[in-house]
Amino acid sequence: METPRSARRPRRPRETTRLGMALLGQPPLRNSFKPIEALSQDQLMAIHEASLTLLEETGIEFMGAAARQAFRKAGAAVEEATGLVRIPRELIAQGLKTAPSSFVLTPRNPARRLHIGENHVSFGLVAGPPNIHDAVAGRRSGNHEDYVSLIKLAQSFDIIHFIGNQPTAPIELPARTRHLDCYLANVTYSDRVYHCTSIGRNRALDGIDIMAISRGLTREQMIDDPGVLTIISVNSPRRFDEAMSDGLMAMSEHGQAVVVTPFTLMGAMTPVTMAAALTQQNAEALAGILLTQLTRPGAPVVYGAFTSNVDMRSGAPAFGTPENARATLAAGQLARLYNLPYRASNSSASNIVDAQAAYESEMSIWSSVMGHANLVYHGAGWMEGGLTASFEKIVLDVEMLQMMAETIKPMDVNPAEIAEGLAAIAAVPTGGHFFGAEHTLSRYETAFYTPLLSNWQNYENWELAGGLDATQRATQIWQKALEIYERPPLDPAIEEALAAFVARRKEELKNVDH
Amino acid sequence: METPRSARRPRRPRETTRLGMALLGQPPLRNSFKPIEALSQDQLMAIHEASLTLLEETGIEFMGAAARQAFRKAGAAVEEATGLVRIPRELIAQGLKTAPSSFVLTPRNPARRLHIGENHVSFGLVAGPPNIHDAVAGRRSGNHEDYVSLIKLAQSFDIIHFIGNQPTAPIELPARTRHLDCYLANVTYSDRVYHCTSIGRNRALDGIDIMAISRGLTREQMIDDPGVLTIISVNSPRRFDEAMSDGLMAMSEHGQAVVVTPFTLMGAMTPVTMAAALTQQNAEALAGILLTQLTRPGAPVVYGAFTSNVDMRSGAPAFGTPENARATLAAGQLARLYNLPYRASNSSASNIVDAQAAYESEMSIWSSVMGHANLVYHGAGWMEGGLTASFEKIVLDVEMLQMMAETIKPMDVNPAEIAEGLAAIAAVPTGGHFFGAEHTLSRYETAFYTPLLSNWQNYENWELAGGLDATQRATQIWQKALEIYERPPLDPAIEEALAAFVARRKEELKNVDH
Repeated sequence: METPRSARRPRRPRETTRLGMALLGQPPLRNSFKPIEALSQDQLMAIHEASLTLLEETGIEFMGAAARQAFRKAGAAVEEATGLVRIPRELIAQGLKTAPSSFVLTPRNPARRLHIGENHVSFGLVAGPPNIHDAVAGRRSGNHEDYVSLIKLAQSFDIIHFIGNQPTAPIELPARTRHLDCYLANVTYSDRVYHCTSIGRNRALDGIDIMAISRGLTREQMIDDPGVLTIISVNSPRRFDEAMSDGLMAMSEHGQAVVVTPFTLMGAMTPVTMAAALTQQNAEALAGILLTQLTRPGAPVVYGAFTSNVDMRSGAPAFGTPENARATLAAGQLARLYNLPYRASNSSASNIVDAQAAYESEMSIWSSVMGHANLVYHGAGWMEGGLTASFEKIVLDVEMLQMMAETIKPMDVNPAEIAEGLAAIAAVPTGGHFFGAEHTLSRYETAFYTPLLSNWQNYENWELAGGLDATQRATQIWQKALEIYERPPLDPAIEEALAAFVARRKEELKNVDH
Repeated sequence: METPRSARRPRRPRETTRLGMALLGQPPLRNSFKPIEALSQDQLMAIHEASLTLLEETGIEFMGAAARQAFRKAGAAVEEATGLVRIPRELIAQGLKTAPSSFVLTPRNPARRLHIGENHVSFGLVAGPPNIHDAVAGRRSGNHEDYVSLIKLAQSFDIIHFIGNQPTAPIELPARTRHLDCYLANVTYSDRVYHCTSIGRNRALDGIDIMAISRGLTREQMIDDPGVLTIISVNSPRRFDEAMSDGLMAMSEHGQAVVVTPFTLMGAMTPVTMAAALTQQNAEALAGILLTQLTRPGAPVVYGAFTSNVDMRSGAPAFGTPENARATLAAGQLARLYNLPYRASNSSASNIVDAQAAYESEMSIWSSVMGHANLVYHGAGWMEGGLTASFEKIVLDVEMLQMMAETIKPMDVNPAEIAEGLAAIAAVPTGGHFFGAEHTLSRYETAFYTPLLSNWQNYENWELAGGLDATQRATQIWQKALEIYERPPLDPAIEEALAAFVARRKEELKNVDH
C-alpha cells in the first residue's frame, strides 16, 4: 500500500465532462494491491525451466531470414531447412538482462503519456475485429466511418489509455494503404498512444513516422523517446511468420515498444493442460523477447499472454473462462520473474452485449488487473471473441474499467480520517443516520464512485423512466458521447505535414507489391 | 498452494446431471489463493484500535434486557436509561479467545456438511426479498409456491451450499407461523444447511428443532453438533434491537452458528469515509460476537460484513460498487485478525437480469472470494438490492459462482504434467494444432470448465439457434431444472415427525401474541 493521502489535503471536486463521466483513470493509473499468485514458487520455476528446455531442445520456427540471421549471429542453433531456431538458455538470460523493466510511451499529448511497468495499468481500445456492431445499425463489416467513431469514443473516456491495432478494419479502403488512413485517424481524432501494425517493416515504420510528425519529431528522435507500440502475435505452436518478425525488428530497431504475445488457446494451439500451455506460451514469448534485444539491446518490450481455452465439443474459442483467468494470473508471475512489463486482455466470447459479455469480461478484467497486467489490451469494445467491435460494449467496459480503477486506489485510512470518523460516529444517535451530518456534507460530492452506466433507481422509478436495461442505456451513452465529442487540438502545420506524409506514402505504395 | 495432484492419478469423468450441469462446488470447496489485502498492517491495526475505543467510550445500544444483563454481568458499563453498553477492550479480547476459528454445520444429508473457516467457501441462496421475479410471470409478491420453487432450484445446483433466510416471504401465510412452513419446505425440498429466522427466541428454536428432527436428533444433541445458522443484523448505527439479541442468544445457547452482520451503508448508516465505516462496522460486529461468547463460550460465530454505499444524489443503496469491493476485502482482513470465519455477500442493485446485474455481482463475488469470505450470503438470486429474488438471476449467479470455484482450484502444475506437456508440444509441428493429439484425446472431457449458461457458438449459429441472450437462456435453464427436480430422499418416519411438530407448533402459536 502507498502512504495514505493526508485527510487534511483539500478535496477538489471530481471534474466531469458534460456527459457526467468521471475523469477517472487518467494516466498514471496505479494498482495499490499486491498481485494474486496462482502458482507456487516451485511451480513457477518448473515452468520457467521447462520452457528453457523447450527452447533449447525443440526450438521455435522463425520463417523470416532476418530473424534467423540475428539468432545465428548471437549463437543460437539455426536449422535453415525447417527454420527451427534452438536457443541456449544462456542467450535467453542475456536478453533478459538488457530488456527494461519499465518504460514510457509519449503520444502527441504529453498528458496522455503511458508508464508501462511497475504497478501501472493502462487500458486499450478494442483491436482487430473485422466487424462492427451497435444496437441501432446492427452488425456490419468494418469501414472507415465506424473506425473514426471508435477512435472518437476512445478519446471520450479517460480510462481508455491507448488505441490498439485497428479497432475495426476499414475494408472499403485499399489494403495496401489502409494502415495510413488508420494512423491518420488515430492521431487526428485522438491524442493517445497507438498501435503500429507490424505486418512487415513498412506498416510499422509508417506508424512510427506519423507519431513522430504529430509530436514534431523525426523518426530518429523517437528512438530514445518512444511513442507507439505493437503486438507481435506468435503463430502458435512455435512459429513466428516472416511479416511478424520483420515488423518486430523494425519496431525494436527504432526503439518502439514490442509486445510479444503467443496466441495460445488450450486444446487447439497448445495441449489442454495448464502445465503445457504455460510452458509453451513462456517459451514462445521468451523467443520473441530475445529477438527484440538482439535487434536493439534495451529496446522496450512487454511479456504478452493470451492463454485461454477452446470449447472441446466444438473447437470454438472461449474467453473470460476460469482457465483464461488462471493462466492470466500465472503469466503475470512469469513476467515478474523476468522483471518485464506484462500485457493481458479484456475478452469475452458473447455474441451480444448481455450478462455473459459482462461476466466474461469481469473474469478477464479482475484476473488481468490482479495479475498486475501493465497493459490490458482490448480493454473496451471487444465482442464475439474478437470478431466484432461493439459500441455498446465500449460503454459497458468503460464502466467496468472505471470501477476497477476506483477499486485499486490506495485506501484513504489514516489517523486523521479515523479520528474524524470516530467523532462523526459519536455525534449521530444509535439507529439514526448520517445524511445531514457535517462530516457527510463536506465530503459527499467526491466520497464515492459515480457510475456511468449503472442505474440505482428503485424499481418503480426505473420502470417509469422506461425500464431500460444496461445495454439500452449504453446506446444512449455512446450516442451522447459522439454528439458532444470534440477533436483534441492539433497545430495546423502539423496537420498539414501529416496530410502531406500520407499523400506521399500513398503515392509511393501505389505500385509496391506488398 | 496445495500439493498438486499427481498427474498419474486416474481422471474420472466429471459427473453431470441430466441438465448437463457440472457437479462443481460440492462441499468442501476450498480457496487455494492467498487473500487480497486492501489495508496495510498499520491501517488494519488503526481500525482495530479505533473500534475498541468506540466500544469503550461511545458504546453500542442493546434494546434487549437479556443482552444488557449479560454484558453487565461480564463487567461492561451498562446505562439502563439509554440501553448503551460500553465494553472494555479486555472483555472483547476475552470473547475473541473462546470464539472458534472454524466449525462444521451438518444438515440432514451429511454429504452437504459445511466447513466454515480456514480457506473453505460456501455460497448461499438469496435471502430475504419480499418480491419474486421471473421472465415468464413477471414481478410479484412472495408466496409459498415460489418459495418452494426457489428451494428446489437451490437443491438443483451443487454450488448453492446453504439456504439463507426466507429466499422470499410467503406473505399469504399467517406471519405468526410462516417460519414453520418455510423451515418445513427447506428440509423437505432440500437437504442443505439452512438459516433460522432470529426474530425473537421462538422462531430460532423452531428452526433448530426442525433441523434436529430431520437429523433424528434432539435439540440438545445438536448443541455440540450444529446444523443451522442465523444472521444477526445490526440496526446500524450502533443498535441491536431486542428481537435480534434475543434470537442471537437463543442460537448461541443451543450451540448453533451466529453471523453478526452490521448493515453499514456508507453515507446513510455510517459516515462516508472508509476509515469511519470500517471502524463502526468492526465495533458493531465485535459487540455481537462478544455476546455470543458471553452466552456460550465456544459458540460458533462468524464475522459478517455488509459495507457498501448509497447513491449520494438520491440516498438509494448501491451494491457491487468499488466501495463495496474495497470494504469487503478490508473486512476479511479484520476477520482474519480475530481468527474468525468471515461472511460477505453477492449483491447487485440492478432492477433486471442484465449486464449491470452481472458486473455488480462479479465485483462482489471476486471481492468476497479474494477477501477469503467463508460464507457468501445471497450467493444466487439476489436482485434489486435485495428487494426481489429472481429465477434468472439464480442461473446467472450459479454460472458465475461455478466459474469462480473452478478458478480458485489448485493449479495442476507438477513435474509429471510438465514432462507430458513437453512431449506433447514436441510432437506437434510448428503452426499445427493439438485437436487430434493423444495427449488431448485422453484428457479433453475433463480438461476445462463446461459452462451452464455461456454460449460459445459463432455468431451465425447463435443467430440460427434463436439469438437468445444470457437472460433468455437462463429462463430455459431454470424451467428445465424445475422440470427434472427430484426431492432428496427422506425417511417417511422423519417426514411424519416433521409434520407432527409443525402441526403442534402451529396450534401452540395460534393464540400467542408475538
